[in-house]
Amino acid sequence: MSTTVRSIDDPDLLPFLPFIYLAWSDGELRESEIVSICDEMSATGLDQDCRLAFDGWLNPTDPPSPNELATVLDLIRDSVAPIDGVESLDIEAFAEQLATTGRRGNELTSSEREAVRLLGRQLGLEGSEPTRAVTGRARPQNPTGTESTLDVPRLDVDALVALRDGPRQEIRQQVRALLSQPDFAHVYGLPMDEHRVRVLAQCRRLADEGIGRLGFPAQHGGAGTQSDFLGAFSVIAHHDLSLLTKFGVQFGLFGGALLRLGTESHHAELLEPMMSMALPGCFAMTETDHGSNVQALETTATFDPTTDEFVVHTPHLGAGKDYIGNAANDGHAAVVFAQLVTDGRGHGVHAFVVPIRSADGHPMPGVAIEDDGPKAGLNGVDNGRLWFDQVCIPRTNLLDRFASVAADGTYDSPIPGEGKRFFTTIGTLVGGRIGVGTASISAAETALAIAVRYGLRRRQFGPGGPSEPETVLLDYPQHQRRLMPLLATTWAYRFALEQLADDYNGERLESRVLEGQAAGLKAWASWHANRTIQECREACGGAGYLTENRLGPLKADADIFQTYEGDNTVLAQLVARGLLTNYAQQFNDLGLLGTVRFLAGRAVETVREANPIVLGGADEDELRDVENYVDLFRWREEHLVAALAARLRKRISTGTDSAVAFGEVQDHAIEAARAHVDHLVVKRFVTMVESMPEGPERDALELLCDLHALSMLEADRGWFMEHGKLSAAASKQIRKLVSVLCAEARLIARPLVDAFAIPDEILGAEALIDD
Amino acid sequence: MSTTVRSIDDPDLLPFLPFIYLAWSDGELRESEIVSICDEMSATGLDQDCRLAFDGWLNPTDPPSPNELATVLDLIRDSVAPIDGVESLDIEAFAEQLATTGRRGNELTSSEREAVRLLGRQLGLEGSEPTRAVTGRARPQNPTGTESTLDVPRLDVDALVALRDGPRQEIRQQVRALLSQPDFAHVYGLPMDEHRVRVLAQCRRLADEGIGRLGFPAQHGGAGTQSDFLGAFSVIAHHDLSLLTKFGVQFGLFGGALLRLGTESHHAELLEPMMSMALPGCFAMTETDHGSNVQALETTATFDPTTDEFVVHTPHLGAGKDYIGNAANDGHAAVVFAQLVTDGRGHGVHAFVVPIRSADGHPMPGVAIEDDGPKAGLNGVDNGRLWFDQVCIPRTNLLDRFASVAADGTYDSPIPGEGKRFFTTIGTLVGGRIGVGTASISAAETALAIAVRYGLRRRQFGPGGPSEPETVLLDYPQHQRRLMPLLATTWAYRFALEQLADDYNGERLESRVLEGQAAGLKAWASWHANRTIQECREACGGAGYLTENRLGPLKADADIFQTYEGDNTVLAQLVARGLLTNYAQQFNDLGLLGTVRFLAGRAVETVREANPIVLGGADEDELRDVENYVDLFRWREEHLVAALAARLRKRISTGTDSAVAFGEVQDHAIEAARAHVDHLVVKRFVTMVESMPEGPERDALELLCDLHALSMLEADRGWFMEHGKLSAAASKQIRKLVSVLCAEARLIARPLVDAFAIPDEILGAEALIDD
Repeated sequence: MSTTVRSIDDPDLLPFLPFIYLAWSDGELRESEIVSICDEMSATGLDQDCRLAFDGWLNPTDPPSPNELATVLDLIRDSVAPIDGVESLDIEAFAEQLATTGRRGNELTSSEREAVRLLGRQLGLEGSEPTRAVTGRARPQNPTGTESTLDVPRLDVDALVALRDGPRQEIRQQVRALLSQPDFAHVYGLPMDEHRVRVLAQCRRLADEGIGRLGFPAQHGGAGTQSDFLGAFSVIAHHDLSLLTKFGVQFGLFGGALLRLGTESHHAELLEPMMSMALPGCFAMTETDHGSNVQALETTATFDPTTDEFVVHTPHLGAGKDYIGNAANDGHAAVVFAQLVTDGRGHGVHAFVVPIRSADGHPMPGVAIEDDGPKAGLNGVDNGRLWFDQVCIPRTNLLDRFASVAADGTYDSPIPGEGKRFFTTIGTLVGGRIGVGTASISAAETALAIAVRYGLRRRQFGPGGPSEPETVLLDYPQHQRRLMPLLATTWAYRFALEQLADDYNGERLESRVLEGQAAGLKAWASWHANRTIQECREACGGAGYLTENRLGPLKADADIFQTYEGDNTVLAQLVARGLLTNYAQQFNDLGLLGTVRFLAGRAVETVREANPIVLGGADEDELRDVENYVDLFRWREEHLVAALAARLRKRISTGTDSAVAFGEVQDHAIEAARAHVDHLVVKRFVTMVESMPEGPERDALELLCDLHALSMLEADRGWFMEHGKLSAAASKQIRKLVSVLCAEARLIARPLVDAFAIPDEILGAEALIDD
Repeated sequence: MSTTVRSIDDPDLLPFLPFIYLAWSDGELRESEIVSICDEMSATGLDQDCRLAFDGWLNPTDPPSPNELATVLDLIRDSVAPIDGVESLDIEAFAEQLATTGRRGNELTSSEREAVRLLGRQLGLEGSEPTRAVTGRARPQNPTGTESTLDVPRLDVDALVALRDGPRQEIRQQVRALLSQPDFAHVYGLPMDEHRVRVLAQCRRLADEGIGRLGFPAQHGGAGTQSDFLGAFSVIAHHDLSLLTKFGVQFGLFGGALLRLGTESHHAELLEPMMSMALPGCFAMTETDHGSNVQALETTATFDPTTDEFVVHTPHLGAGKDYIGNAANDGHAAVVFAQLVTDGRGHGVHAFVVPIRSADGHPMPGVAIEDDGPKAGLNGVDNGRLWFDQVCIPRTNLLDRFASVAADGTYDSPIPGEGKRFFTTIGTLVGGRIGVGTASISAAETALAIAVRYGLRRRQFGPGGPSEPETVLLDYPQHQRRLMPLLATTWAYRFALEQLADDYNGERLESRVLEGQAAGLKAWASWHANRTIQECREACGGAGYLTENRLGPLKADADIFQTYEGDNTVLAQLVARGLLTNYAQQFNDLGLLGTVRFLAGRAVETVREANPIVLGGADEDELRDVENYVDLFRWREEHLVAALAARLRKRISTGTDSAVAFGEVQDHAIEAARAHVDHLVVKRFVTMVESMPEGPERDALELLCDLHALSMLEADRGWFMEHGKLSAAASKQIRKLVSVLCAEARLIARPLVDAFAIPDEILGAEALIDD
């Protein structure tokens, strides 16, 4: 820079040095702004030499060098070095201090004081922060660091685990201990073939330990209940999801079909080898061309009374079974779903046991097998395709719980209608959907346990710029907003699914209600898991993308949960159909055919009269009142079901086919289904909390329940406002409240993820969770 | 079943057979409902024998066998076999027809007619659908099959491609042709090592073809403009994203740093080997411990005047460079970001060229290299970690565009302040963010091209149950709702990013504005891509999960776009800081330090006075008026920025540090940034459409623009209602309108994805897109 009238170490310039330093040190000041500052300074009564010096230092076409700027800083710091407490002065007081300090020793003149005020205002310097920046001194006590200053409730993690595990705690603890053993240690980035071998070995190990016997009758060597099976499944789902799927295919789908579609002779012959994995099996339902439309599948099983055999046949390539777990490598038998034909007449889809590989592992004659190849995830599972070319099986291989064929070819069934028989058959497989919902929530728990623990140790940026300690991620409001509602919702779904497991085990629900809940919870739990894992991956940044940190594989594996055991969109429509049936029956004690035809305009009115609370105020207690929010969820469900019914009726009454009409209102149907699931989940959470004794654990879950419910309301606040159930003020207040609850939940986030009871050995991701 | 008073083939029973069949054939009729039907039938004047027969057939404790039910159906169908047109009768008329047909030959008695009416009502049989179900006859003409009956505009795909490609069409066509060659054929499911080898070879091939020379100065062997580079990049992003990333690391990051941070001597020495890939290089900025907080990185480069060298050193393990592309296998040099120290004083982060491997490929002395190992995606890229142990490099290896060190150790820079120097240095790398945004939209296009083409050929379920032809997926409203808004938004982002590429190339934007737009578009384009690919994967069901169908790898690969080149959440805050700076300057011609301090309450009022349109009605024209919706987006941005400013001011004026205050309002900052990006993108789309000549292509893009804007409004309609800018009626109407626009967009979905101009060879996924 050019020469200045006064040297930079002229004592009279000292009080102005902080402004010179600050003007150049920051990236935001433009040249035009500096010029403008100099202009205004000319108008003050400041000593001309001083002004000229100042102008020289602020000349935008001739900025100081970095070393000159460093000298400025040295001069300031040297002057105040012996003086305590300057860091709490604002910039004007600091300039005053500099004037009376050291070599100069005179307080500011009134013109100087005016100039200092002007500079402070123009540079926008408020409070003591600029002084700290110039002196390089930190604030005496850091006001952030939430944990140390707030009163954090101490939670009894064991009590939370017991609450969450419920009646399935014992089996869960057993499986946790088993999966923590070295045989089950995570190995990352295995090639597909090695991964499959490892998963098969681990699955056999589970069978050896009797975990595959859960849920099968004792007289055939089974142990425990279906409920225990789901408990074990929920823990395996914290581990590699390929293992979970392999286990689920063998014992849930293959074993479940033998148990629920077969009869005594099948049980006596097949359950033991299935449970021991002497007979690895497949569940061959899906076909390439028809996917979700199982009723339309094309594989046939034609009875031939001359040989007393069924002939299983794939009529064309697209009618091959596809995506069949255990098929590509390991399966020896398959439960094959096919159109039963006897006596020249088709009777719809039935299940048959078909050997697909001989004892030495080669495909049986007439059975063609192809590997599905690499997948986006679950590469430890050997999915494959199966085609049958006139494969003969004994008549007794028909799983004949719901229909039988006599030796002479006579077909019989206790269920006369083909449609009802089909849905009854399929309905017995509801356990699979409860399993996928359960596993989805476990996957969400795994992701949250990793992301929350990482968020509590990883520091990024900080209150005082690059030189001060950085802040832990979870202290950032946005990070809390990202993870805490997902944590709350994960607990909510867990309780709903545990309840469903209880109801299923105790046969406490009518089958249609059970199927509806299983379908709905499967769909929205898996969507929730997908969203949660994604958010957790992003919340762990680049580290979350490394395979060894599990979030990547977890996301890729869990993705298919949205498709298998029923595509979520198809399941959502199934839920909606169930709701319409129930809905119609509320108002009409008589039957209905195809559900939709009875739907009455009058019914819509009936529901609308049962108006709920309108949240008009912005009072926190009103918003957090469980009766209020449960009522809003109830009303939304009822309203959407009634509106769906009205839409359908309008179409059908003007001559549209019911299936076409249902297709046209598909998006409304899915909305209604979602409203049903939301309502179910919130109700269940509230009931759970209300059953707890007073104490910090109850307070914690109450907080989560509110956070879950209010963040759900927040997400759909547009709808509630459209329907006059939420005022603009209440809606805004809900948003604020959700942020407040997120901050509160952050304080107990660690015990809340510890209560998922995932041992570190199972959790993996050492690099992220290391405390 | 038990004997009945009348035999089933008694002609008097014939008119009632359809009701018997329908009562049993459907899955929804409960036993209690059947009982109730029988009871009511007793009250009719029907012949007692007939009633008893009826009761017998409807006895829930003794249902008919499937064969008996089949006989019922045979009797009905035989009776009406010779009669045309019965399928269009309603069930009462059909019963009437049966009565007068065949053996009976008498019309219904009045009691019979009453019974038929009662049964029809109780079973909820409306229209001709039940008759068609019983007769097994289809409706003469299927009223669905949208494409054939609606007037679909014919679009000129080439014109759309030209519009989309803009000034970069030539280079794009060139790269499309290149990537369609056999060298670039997709190979699915390669192990990591083989994938890396293949990607390296492909990247070299791109270099050989001169694609890596784009964007570098002609006097050093470069060719074309930065804009061409982005054009090529957008096409490579339709291919394997590992190749894209490898290419981006070499020519964008490594090459870009040499060009923009280095000076003439660096250019003369290094650009040619970089462009030819004789010198594969890395961009070593990120460190394990500091991630996004680049200013705090800990690697040092200390100048030693006695040797005229910098000593590059990693002080501890956590200060190692992490996630560095090209580091694990292939890189020979790296641009390393380190704290420059000379004369005992630190001057902040600077970039240095550091050789990391010798010509024979071994790490240089003092350089430790570790493979990052398998990742969730991008496994064709060799990411690694680098540590430096007192590595000496010549003084001239400092990339000295913004700062230099003299032989005596004197530091100099035209930018005196460290903060401003840092942000100026980083700011030159903005091209990388434009690149990632651009690539994100290409990835979304790939996914949509696959999902739309699959949705137009895959059939599932159908109008008439399992026996009739199934419906193509994209005819389902939910499927349209899933994909069409994403298609519209993808076009919207493409135009915004193309504009940004133009502005960048023509240096038409102030650097701060450019950085803000690049950061914002990178963040929201990558979030959009992630959501789009996920939705497309689900929309392709299980088939979408197979690696060979590309959606799985695409999703896994593109996931990290949200993190690399700046974590989206961090970038969003950078956008917000820029908005605050601009905002403050709107009202104050003077400067501000640290952006936030000037923020004035008065400004909030000033903005609030510029109220926008309030959408109160539900008129389609009003809602689709671009001026109206652009105005809403403008107002939301201005309002959120002003509110953010007010929040910050409140905190700072009560003594909170600016960094802490910014942390506390982080979520509001991100909302404001999103509003800015939304506004920018919508405005750009509108401008684009307005520049087009009248015609079907303009109509198509107008439709997409409306769909994009309205679906964005729909997504945030809660906020607009809260702020009184949208009435409940308008909000509801927007939802309906979005569905209508989705259905319209479905009709032109194929040309709209064809206009992404992705050759089938590049698209891959043959099994899904096969026409």
